[in-house]
This record gives sequence, C-alpha cells and structure tokens, in this order.
Amino acid sequence: MKLTSKYLENAVDQLASLPGIGKKTALRLVLNLLNRSEEEITAFTSSFQEMKLHLKKCIKCGNITDEECCVICSNDNRDQSIICVVEDIRDVIAIEGTGTYKGIYHVLGGVISPMDGIGPSDLNINSLIDKTSNGRINEIIFALSPTMEGDTTNYYLYKKLNLYGVLITTLSRGVSIGTELQYADENTLGKSLLYRHPFQTNI
Amino acid sequence: MKLTSKYLENAVDQLASLPGIGKKTALRLVLNLLNRSEEEITAFTSSFQEMKLHLKKCIKCGNITDEECCVICSNDNRDQSIICVVEDIRDVIAIEGTGTYKGIYHVLGGVISPMDGIGPSDLNINSLIDKTSNGRINEIIFALSPTMEGDTTNYYLYKKLNLYGVLITTLSRGVSIGTELQYADENTLGKSLLYRHPFQTNI
Repeated sequence: MKLTSKYLENAVDQLASLPGIGKKTALRLVLNLLNRSEEEITAFTSSFQEMKLHLKKCIKCGNITDEECCVICSNDNRDQSIICVVEDIRDVIAIEGTGTYKGIYHVLGGVISPMDGIGPSDLNINSLIDKTSNGRINEIIFALSPTMEGDTTNYYLYKKLNLYGVLITTLSRGVSIGTELQYADENTLGKSLLYRHPFQTNI
Repeated sequence: MKLTSKYLENAVDQLASLPGIGKKTALRLVLNLLNRSEEEITAFTSSFQEMKLHLKKCIKCGNITDEECCVICSNDNRDQSIICVVEDIRDVIAIEGTGTYKGIYHVLGGVISPMDGIGPSDLNINSLIDKTSNGRINEIIFALSPTMEGDTTNYYLYKKLNLYGVLITTLSRGVSIGTELQYADENTLGKSLLYRHPFQTNI
C-alpha cells in the first residue's frame, strides 16, 4: 500500500504497530482521526501521554493505579486475607466484572513461559511470598488461564506458598454455562466429572 | 467494564472512539502502549498531531497531500486528460495498487446519500465540472462503489458532465476473478453476460 503523504504514512505505521491492527485498518482509523478538529486530536493524543506519565503499579498488588496504592487494596471493605493471583490487569477487570469477589488481588505481570524466556524472576512473585509469609493471609486463589504456562506457574507458586500452611485454591474447571455437552472438549468434560459437586437448587 | 484508573479509562475511551474498536480491544491496545518507552509514546502521539497539522487536500483533485498539489497531479508522466472519479482516498490507494492506471484522479469526498443527509453540494463536484468544461479532458471514468448511493452519484454526475461532450466510462461490473460461477449473485452474473466482450488470449 503506497501512500501519497509521508505524514499520513507515519500515522498509519504508528497505529499499525499496535497488535492486531493491519495497515488497511490503520488507514481507516487515521482517516477518521483526520476528520476531527485539532482539539479532538489533542484530546486523543494527550490521553496516551498522560496515561504514561501518571499510571503506576500498585505497591501492594501490582495492579495499575493513579495513586501509590490501588482502589481495591486501599478499600477497607475488601477482605485483605484472601488474595486472588492473576496474570495481568485484564483478569482483574474480568473478575471484578462478575461482582462476586470481595478479596484483594495479586498481579503477576505474566506467567512462567520458558519458550518466551520468562522465568519466575521476571514475575511479581517475591512480594506474593512476602505477603504470605507474614501470616495474615488465609486463602490464596490461583486464577491463571488453564494453559500449559498457567499450570506451570500454578505448580511453581504452590511449591513456594504451601510451606506457609495457607489454604490454596484454584478456579474450578468445568463445562461453560450455555455449552452443549456434546461439543465440550474431552479434557474439560473429564475435569467437570472429576470435580462434580452436590446439586444445589438455589443456583 | 470498570477500570481502576481514570487515566487508563480516558485512554481506553479515546481509542474506543475510533470506528470498529470496542472497549476490550481498546484496553488491549492501551496496555500494549503502556509497555512502551516515553519516546515511543511521543512518536506515537506526535504522528497524529503532525498529520493534522501538515496534511492538506490537493487543490486539483482533493486527494490528501503534504504539498499544495499531490504527487499524482504534479506528475508530468500521468495523462492529465483522463480523470478517474472516486469516493475517497482509499479508492485512490486501491487503484494505484493495481499499477494499471496512468491518468489522474478526482476525489469526491463521499457519495450522494439522502439517507445520511449528503447532497451534491456537500461533495467536491463543482471543481470536477469546471475541469471538464475547460475542454482539456478526454475521458472521465466513474469508479464509485456499485451501491445504490454510488449509482445515484454516477447518474447525477453523468447528467452534469455529459453536456460537455466528454467520453464518460465506468468500471466494468462482472464476475470477480477466482469466484465460482454458481456462487456469483444473480445481478452481477446478469451484468457480466450483458457486458460480455470478445475473448482475448493474452489476458
């Protein structure tokens, strides 16, 4: 795709540097921006500058925050003795979206993946061990994705944290709500049989 | 989707204001930006600022350009007596991509669409009539999309331009290359029969 303007080309290249955005899509988006006023463009661009300038990682959990400590960790109504371990902040948002969790989080910033050269030392693991060792934690919930890397990380964390006698749980695996049983994969169906639980009429 | 930072939320909202980008995609893109250095963020944002500052419409054809006159109109090797009429600059890029067109363009900036409140006066039509009336144009090619709006615009332009005795042509309609005939829609197949042409062995 050859463009007739180097400024246009530069803007398209910058947008196309984002994951999942190709050159054709980038051009469509850039032409949309071009139709906006200068003030709107400034609002658009300064939002990214300000985000980079002001966003910090929460010193307690690693979540993204405007302050030193995120709104979840600094909320006295949350149960500070239950920690949900997640890969990144999108998982925090997803779990918060369910409205069913009242504990706090710990964001690892990734999962152990030797193929990508990511080892335990690259992740936010030491502060989780520190928190656990001080004795004020009752339960740690592993909420990593059910992938090879997620399971490897779960196993590593279990070995480290189990020393402190804390209850370690993991999200249940099973058939998704709305799935037709015949289309569920064998592994998931097997796990949902293994972890079957007493039938309850109130859910 | 509730975010724990107003800066993050602002950046997500700005990206999600682009067409076809939802909040979840915007968050994924913003987190990718957040992992970049300050210099990279500045390069990202200034590309849009500079584009807005420097890009102009070519005074001859309405194409987007860095100079007063675009590289196509100012190219002496292009045949200035053939004008290809297109809806927007993405069509210019698409036709240039074929490498088969050596004339110049005229970018309307849209098509007549009463449903969207776009009439002839909202489009770059008068300058096309001026160009045609000065007698130096031999052919005008209508290259608008084969939609209701495109056909309406073609008809309007034909009525205006036909007075000047210039040859008016349109892109051929027919079966796409690579299409299996049984899957072609009836309208297209009908048109491709109507406009059949002598068989040539060199294409």
